[in-house]
Amino acid sequence: MTTDFKFILDTLWLLISGALVMWMGAGFALVEAGLCQAKNTVTILTKNLVVYAVACLLYWLLGYNLMYGEGNAVLGAGLMLSGMKDGAHSLMSDFFFQVVFVATAASIVSGAVNERMKFWAFFWFTVVLSAVIYPIQGHWSWGGTALGGLMENFKDFAGSTVVHSVGGWAALAGVIVLGPRLGKYGPDGRVRPIPPSNMALATLGTFILWLGWFGFNGGSQLAAGSMDDIKAVALVIVNTNMAAAAGSVAAVILTQLLYRKMDLSMVLNGALSGLVAITAGPQYPSIALAVLIGAVGGVLVVFAVPFFDKLKLDDPVGALSVHLVNGVWGTLAVGLFSPEATFLAQLRGVAIVGVFTFGLSLMTWLILHKAMGLRVTPQEEQEGIDLHEFGMEAYSGLGPQRSRPSFGS
Amino acid sequence: MTTDFKFILDTLWLLISGALVMWMGAGFALVEAGLCQAKNTVTILTKNLVVYAVACLLYWLLGYNLMYGEGNAVLGAGLMLSGMKDGAHSLMSDFFFQVVFVATAASIVSGAVNERMKFWAFFWFTVVLSAVIYPIQGHWSWGGTALGGLMENFKDFAGSTVVHSVGGWAALAGVIVLGPRLGKYGPDGRVRPIPPSNMALATLGTFILWLGWFGFNGGSQLAAGSMDDIKAVALVIVNTNMAAAAGSVAAVILTQLLYRKMDLSMVLNGALSGLVAITAGPQYPSIALAVLIGAVGGVLVVFAVPFFDKLKLDDPVGALSVHLVNGVWGTLAVGLFSPEATFLAQLRGVAIVGVFTFGLSLMTWLILHKAMGLRVTPQEEQEGIDLHEFGMEAYSGLGPQRSRPSFGS
Amino acid sequence: MTTDFKFILDTLWLLISGALVMWMGAGFALVEAGLCQAKNTVTILTKNLVVYAVACLLYWLLGYNLMYGEGNAVLGAGLMLSGMKDGAHSLMSDFFFQVVFVATAASIVSGAVNERMKFWAFFWFTVVLSAVIYPIQGHWSWGGTALGGLMENFKDFAGSTVVHSVGGWAALAGVIVLGPRLGKYGPDGRVRPIPPSNMALATLGTFILWLGWFGFNGGSQLAAGSMDDIKAVALVIVNTNMAAAAGSVAAVILTQLLYRKMDLSMVLNGALSGLVAITAGPQYPSIALAVLIGAVGGVLVVFAVPFFDKLKLDDPVGALSVHLVNGVWGTLAVGLFSPEATFLAQLRGVAIVGVFTFGLSLMTWLILHKAMGLRVTPQEEQEGIDLHEFGMEAYSGLGPQRSRPSFGS
Repeated sequence: MTTDFKFILDTLWLLISGALVMWMGAGFALVEAGLCQAKNTVTILTKNLVVYAVACLLYWLLGYNLMYGEGNAVLGAGLMLSGMKDGAHSLMSDFFFQVVFVATAASIVSGAVNERMKFWAFFWFTVVLSAVIYPIQGHWSWGGTALGGLMENFKDFAGSTVVHSVGGWAALAGVIVLGPRLGKYGPDGRVRPIPPSNMALATLGTFILWLGWFGFNGGSQLAAGSMDDIKAVALVIVNTNMAAAAGSVAAVILTQLLYRKMDLSMVLNGALSGLVAITAGPQYPSIALAVLIGAVGGVLVVFAVPFFDKLKLDDPVGALSVHLVNGVWGTLAVGLFSPEATFLAQLRGVAIVGVFTFGLSLMTWLILHKAMGLRVTPQEEQEGIDLHEFGMEAYSGLGPQRSRPSFGS
Repeated sequence: MTTDFKFILDTLWLLISGALVMWMGAGFALVEAGLCQAKNTVTILTKNLVVYAVACLLYWLLGYNLMYGEGNAVLGAGLMLSGMKDGAHSLMSDFFFQVVFVATAASIVSGAVNERMKFWAFFWFTVVLSAVIYPIQGHWSWGGTALGGLMENFKDFAGSTVVHSVGGWAALAGVIVLGPRLGKYGPDGRVRPIPPSNMALATLGTFILWLGWFGFNGGSQLAAGSMDDIKAVALVIVNTNMAAAAGSVAAVILTQLLYRKMDLSMVLNGALSGLVAITAGPQYPSIALAVLIGAVGGVLVVFAVPFFDKLKLDDPVGALSVHLVNGVWGTLAVGLFSPEATFLAQLRGVAIVGVFTFGLSLMTWLILHKAMGLRVTPQEEQEGIDLHEFGMEAYSGLGPQRSRPSFGS
Repeated sequence: MTTDFKFILDTLWLLISGALVMWMGAGFALVEAGLCQAKNTVTILTKNLVVYAVACLLYWLLGYNLMYGEGNAVLGAGLMLSGMKDGAHSLMSDFFFQVVFVATAASIVSGAVNERMKFWAFFWFTVVLSAVIYPIQGHWSWGGTALGGLMENFKDFAGSTVVHSVGGWAALAGVIVLGPRLGKYGPDGRVRPIPPSNMALATLGTFILWLGWFGFNGGSQLAAGSMDDIKAVALVIVNTNMAAAAGSVAAVILTQLLYRKMDLSMVLNGALSGLVAITAGPQYPSIALAVLIGAVGGVLVVFAVPFFDKLKLDDPVGALSVHLVNGVWGTLAVGLFSPEATFLAQLRGVAIVGVFTFGLSLMTWLILHKAMGLRVTPQEEQEGIDLHEFGMEAYSGLGPQRSRPSFGS
């Protein structure tokens, strides 16, 4: 095994994994578009494509340097990417793999604030998240300085905390400031269900995320060019797959037992919860333990969704239940089960990242609220944001065709 | 070339290929959801996600050990996965690549029994198929013992028989026990067409399967880290692609000639038939022969679909025509064309696997029929299974928006 | 680093990249199906699957040999593929990577002529494009002879000209011969918008193309098995991603500023324009320059779409604006910015390929027009091509379900 060989294989694996994580952007777009209403679909789709693009641009301009440049305990230095050098793998492959993670965190926020937020308010929040919030906290866990020791021994292999709970905390702050959709919580305190527009797309989106997660977790080994690395990657991918399987099966069985009916949204969110939960530590457990961690994720999401509704925190796609709750669960599970971690260090890391992200996000949302307003008008919300911000509808002419007047006649 | 190098590359290729085969799960979900009616879409989507998950869990718990553990001619031993060792590639990558194949076989069954079967009946059948039926017959072809010589010299490179016809035989047994959808075959013996709900999803699903098949067949070389292996993989992928191309073109031309109209479902099934047909032997033929094998697949499916309808075997997606008929054709084609196989050995293998799978599946379906009933009530079938088993619809609000009363108003 | 190692890695990378480019076929299918009307969706989907298949078959039968076989300055010799030998990578992997590029060029044509062309007219054009037009001009740029020196020093890394503008020129000729859709341009000269049927599919299609482009451009390095190659691939992928990001962000900001509304089709086409523009030279620029090239692409498309409408060149999906305009822009940008190219050589190459492709395509369209007619009847166009050429609809029963009479009742 020469050094060149390892460099080439490690780089190749990061590129393939990064492409899979980029693909998760499509998964988020479809899950959100599918679980929300047709009248806001164009807005949701645009948000999800643009959030990916903005995250890429801002993380390049600023974030990557704050996160990984040599700096101090709190901030990486503002080194320009062009001044950096290749390490154990190509610098460009490293940037590529990191930048798609930022997009994932930002996509999580997108889901929770759907159906009532102005497009441009979300746009500017994404700028701040990608350029500042995400990279600063990321520097503490993955940038090498452990916040001057405060986060020492904090273990988060692929980002249950650094990516998923961060997206979740930012989303929670947004949901609080924004308030629920009109009519979601009746005056009698009852939750009124808003039917999803397209479960086929939501399911496809979940399959895409599941597939992309093989890159998200598998690539987080950051290497594949040695016997140890490739075996670790294989275990990571198997555990990721099995946790997702367990999460979805747990959710389908539990909803059947609880409600005597199944709920496809819960099955999808069960799979995603298993994935989020295993993300903090897919490299150490046996398959049996990965199945357990994933199954707990699938159980948690079934209870978390009505719990947030009870608090009147309106989250149209269940992003808080999936990414925040299970991001925390997965990170703590490493403290419970991994011989190389302690529960206390995990808890402290979760808390520090949570307080920082929630606080800074809240400030950002409030500033945007003051500066431009976060929320569309009630009329826009009722008629659909698509009509007002885009002047177009997502779907046209999907009904029976023979009775439809032909264009041009 | 060191041993490490080969181990690493072989493992990497199995992981990439396995991810592509996992992705085929999404393809099956969309083909089925697209070709069936909107009122059963939620059920179909849930089945396809859960079937993948259940196959993973059961094959881990039992199936993989029965199929590959050292045992006797009929059964692999019940070794636990954790007791096994790495071979020429990482054990975990081997398990990953094998487990996604089980899910494929189970997905094939799913398609044929759509629109009238209870979700939980199918769930339990999947348990039996993944844990028992699939791995036992798989042990004979791929586990190394050739059923004590009875299946000696039987050649099935990537599973035209082991995966596709097995799915097809299990589906055939299910279709017979279950009976056709209400109203499918009129009292006058005429076949009443049931229009598909979403051809865009069905087409996307076919593209997904086509892509995933590069992993299905390409990965079945089980290696990529030597000159011979990588050249074989390249040939396999080219032949796979060309057989699919030939199958779809044959189907579109043939339907135009036969009916003076084209039929997109036939074009999709033509592509899939080419893929199934080449799967038993994509590694030996010239491109020209691969094109021929695929084109015959495309022709067979055009005749098989009305043939099964004539027998009143109602298969809403054409799974029998694609996977059973062409699984058999592809396996026999190896006997006709490959210098390393004989027609007789291929025929005997097809028959043994067919009798075993059909027989055991029939028993399983009958037991489930007795124990819990396979079929939803006529009312549930007419109103849609989604409404009764899930209490939700797949699509909502996709019609014209302006005239729709807004939520909450 | 042994020779074997490099051969294996290069071949593996071409296979993976080729699979990603094949996947772009699904992207084109969805972008077109999403941006056009529901009543022509079956036709569009069939075209996109069959165009891929036909391109594969014809490029194998003839095109590949014309493009790469040793011949003279104008044509490669008609060597059969089977007579060729492996070079720096496996011959089969080379054929696979090249054949999916032909399919891309043909898919571009498909988009522009949608909603009024007969299926079989397009089928035969695809035959000519794949077997003759594409490979002959490809021989000049990539076949090694530079048209006897006339195209010397012409640089087109992954095909802004060879693939995208070629598709664009062929489409332009088709659009001119075919004429606009009925009612698209009112008698008063006003452009009447035809609403897209499914923006969710169009967005998914764009994500697919974006992902596939990592293979399209990344694979065009034709190697990954050395330090220099893998670093080049990493830079290519990062630049490809950033150009797409810049193109989409440029388009969303520009449409908001120009029209006070956003336009999702423009955002999608902005991303695609960034991708097309960077394709001629993703291997040399800094990220900042890649962002600039992509952003200009996103601006160009916003002006090109109304420009073509002013000329009454009806292009339902914006294929000319994306692939022709930005194919030219991207190729010229190499002349402006790359130290290894000159503006003049780039301009000359663009012109030679443009004149050849447009001329030969025009002849082909005119011959097909004479021989079989290009255009469906006005009645077929108004009622939808699906009904007349396929006798089926793409979507059925997606409206509210409870009020729909059940099948069989």
